[in-house]
Amino acid sequence: MTKPTWAEQARRLDAEDELAPFRERFLVDDPELIYLDGNSLGRLPRASAELARELVSEQWGQRLIRGWNDSWFGLPERIGGKIARLLGAAADEVIVADSTSVNLFKLATAALQVRPGCRRIVTDDLNFPSDLYVLQSVLDLCGGGQLEIVHSPDGMTLPLEALAAALNEPAALVSLSHTAFKSAFVHDLAAITALAHRAGALTLWDLSHSVGAMPLDLESAGVDLAVGCGYKYLNGGPGAPAFLYVRRSLQQELRNPLAGWFGRHDPFGFALEYEPEAGMRQFLTGTPPVLSLALIEPGVDLLLEAGMDRLREKSVRQTGYLLSLWEQVLQPLGYRLASPREPERRGSHVSLSHPEGWRINRALIEQLHVIPDFRAPDLIRLGVTPLYTTYAELHRAVEALRRIAADCLYEAYPVQRQGVT
Amino acid sequence: MTKPTWAEQARRLDAEDELAPFRERFLVDDPELIYLDGNSLGRLPRASAELARELVSEQWGQRLIRGWNDSWFGLPERIGGKIARLLGAAADEVIVADSTSVNLFKLATAALQVRPGCRRIVTDDLNFPSDLYVLQSVLDLCGGGQLEIVHSPDGMTLPLEALAAALNEPAALVSLSHTAFKSAFVHDLAAITALAHRAGALTLWDLSHSVGAMPLDLESAGVDLAVGCGYKYLNGGPGAPAFLYVRRSLQQELRNPLAGWFGRHDPFGFALEYEPEAGMRQFLTGTPPVLSLALIEPGVDLLLEAGMDRLREKSVRQTGYLLSLWEQVLQPLGYRLASPREPERRGSHVSLSHPEGWRINRALIEQLHVIPDFRAPDLIRLGVTPLYTTYAELHRAVEALRRIAADCLYEAYPVQRQGVT
Repeated sequence: MTKPTWAEQARRLDAEDELAPFRERFLVDDPELIYLDGNSLGRLPRASAELARELVSEQWGQRLIRGWNDSWFGLPERIGGKIARLLGAAADEVIVADSTSVNLFKLATAALQVRPGCRRIVTDDLNFPSDLYVLQSVLDLCGGGQLEIVHSPDGMTLPLEALAAALNEPAALVSLSHTAFKSAFVHDLAAITALAHRAGALTLWDLSHSVGAMPLDLESAGVDLAVGCGYKYLNGGPGAPAFLYVRRSLQQELRNPLAGWFGRHDPFGFALEYEPEAGMRQFLTGTPPVLSLALIEPGVDLLLEAGMDRLREKSVRQTGYLLSLWEQVLQPLGYRLASPREPERRGSHVSLSHPEGWRINRALIEQLHVIPDFRAPDLIRLGVTPLYTTYAELHRAVEALRRIAADCLYEAYPVQRQGVT
Repeated sequence: MTKPTWAEQARRLDAEDELAPFRERFLVDDPELIYLDGNSLGRLPRASAELARELVSEQWGQRLIRGWNDSWFGLPERIGGKIARLLGAAADEVIVADSTSVNLFKLATAALQVRPGCRRIVTDDLNFPSDLYVLQSVLDLCGGGQLEIVHSPDGMTLPLEALAAALNEPAALVSLSHTAFKSAFVHDLAAITALAHRAGALTLWDLSHSVGAMPLDLESAGVDLAVGCGYKYLNGGPGAPAFLYVRRSLQQELRNPLAGWFGRHDPFGFALEYEPEAGMRQFLTGTPPVLSLALIEPGVDLLLEAGMDRLREKSVRQTGYLLSLWEQVLQPLGYRLASPREPERRGSHVSLSHPEGWRINRALIEQLHVIPDFRAPDLIRLGVTPLYTTYAELHRAVEALRRIAADCLYEAYPVQRQGVT
């Protein structure tokens, strides 16, 4: 098969893509740049640029303190209620606050406090390391306990049986990333939640690499608690605040260990004693960063407008397309697949490993204008963001990966990882 | 003395004010609106409007993930280093992160962990109630202890002797607001820090109503720990992230109880075990909200350009001017002074109480275009922000307060406090 045929196929797939018009809703200033890192930082929705101007120049600049009564005070719930629709949760079960790590801390601590007889948390080594740091912090603060890290046999996936074995003993909490940030392996939400409940544990899912990438149904899976990120597939902007979900029936029982005025009933009464607000609002702590918070909304609106079922369908098709190109073009050049082949266990990115991964990544960015993400030690993550990723971009990225390996273009770069990311 | 004379005096004072040109550096779109709430939310620096556009449309929209290497990763330290100059601290003792409450939680918890034999925290009832909620949360999580709230005899000030008495017994931590948010009473930083140290306690100051309002010298006062707010006198925008200060000699000893990837050494190594970064960066937790974070910088730059000594001199002169107008014009109408008269014990706002405080506040905002702040049950806070407050505004605000009381304009409003603020 010759190269024009690949390009033609990509053009045909793009022409048939009914979600293609959504790309126009994002700023794409440089058509030569292929951006496959929407799973680290989503692109800028055009509506967000306009909202940012209004937020700063009008809401802050002109309305001043009145902005709180106008709209800011209600933003955590309003945007949380929209994110809830992406999660299969009720509007009053989700709120936006703080960072994913701080929210994980709040909910893990709250969970341990309602399981006083047990100090065992089960997680796995596919989880964000940051989540492991937080879970260990929680145990340290709560007087010790066991953080059991179930190990993936292949560094990429985790069979349900491995978790089932760990859950033969009682646990207070099971906390996992639903979609693994390195391999895109997707855990079975309902099955693991059921296993956890049988072990007496609450479940706390990190949905950062799932929300906005696939439909979720926390309610039918019986999930207790969840957190997730605002700046990846939600397109909320760099460091956008995170969200947290608490099943309605747990909201009265759990207590936010970081009590602050924004979670208090009648915060402007300035009473000396804390009294939690009802519902999700009690899980707020300090004053939220309004500009970063408000800018989550346009990206969420776009996801709701496109519909998560359609987006997932395109995502599966696009990652499948990447897999087929890898198999035919890249595998012979030493790229190994580091993501699951089964679509139902695969999130919205495809990871490829290569012994020269770091240098190939530099060459991709600097010579060929393709931005993937690199994850140590040797992974190149190709993120598919169905709201704006085209098949032509995927084809051109694969062609770039082929050229770099075939022509050894990576040799121009130092071997050591440099810079902060 | 007739009214034109007051107005003439205000005009003269404005004409003599060498800081007056700084007002032009802020957006002041409505010259009829008198904004005396810069201590709740500072005005928009014009440079921030331009920076917001650049942050969103260029840094996020065009640079995408590369923004982290370009500048975002270093923002917490870079802006922290500038805030340090307002605090009398070294650049490597301050970092920007999270909210004031979350930072207070981190530092109070870290302090208790290095005072394992003692679970007593001393504070007062002039402190932000939110700070009390956080301190109680910390004790609850750390296995209990005593939060001793020293009570102000007049609800407005606290004699040093009252704290000295509380510090006759050992304590682990003394945590106070340097400037009280209701009365603007200013604690003696050096004297209390010395008392605390004699009691074996570390000091943790909330500088939210001091930073940007007066020069501070944490180093010469021997302060151990501090936090403060980015959206008041720093003009960082609604809900701007907060800062934290840790005396250099304590940075190795204290440990952030909210361990997250942004505080880790080599976060992009994604190692499963936590290893704190050196210096202040270990006190970061999750990914910071970049847009809200970056927008702190222009307001801080303006303070540094104007100079805190000159700003404090103007602030004292302006609050003194308010006091003299109150004495002659407002006191006879039932307004009571709820702030200290001594300039050295007074922050940058003047609080007046009135039995009809809530309704007067409504009339001020809705009929007379004066925005002060209301603090339950009956306080009207008039915030002086020397970068942009004019004497003419203070004079017109007092004239409005006079009219409302003299003509009973407040009777048009319901008695009950309404809305969220």
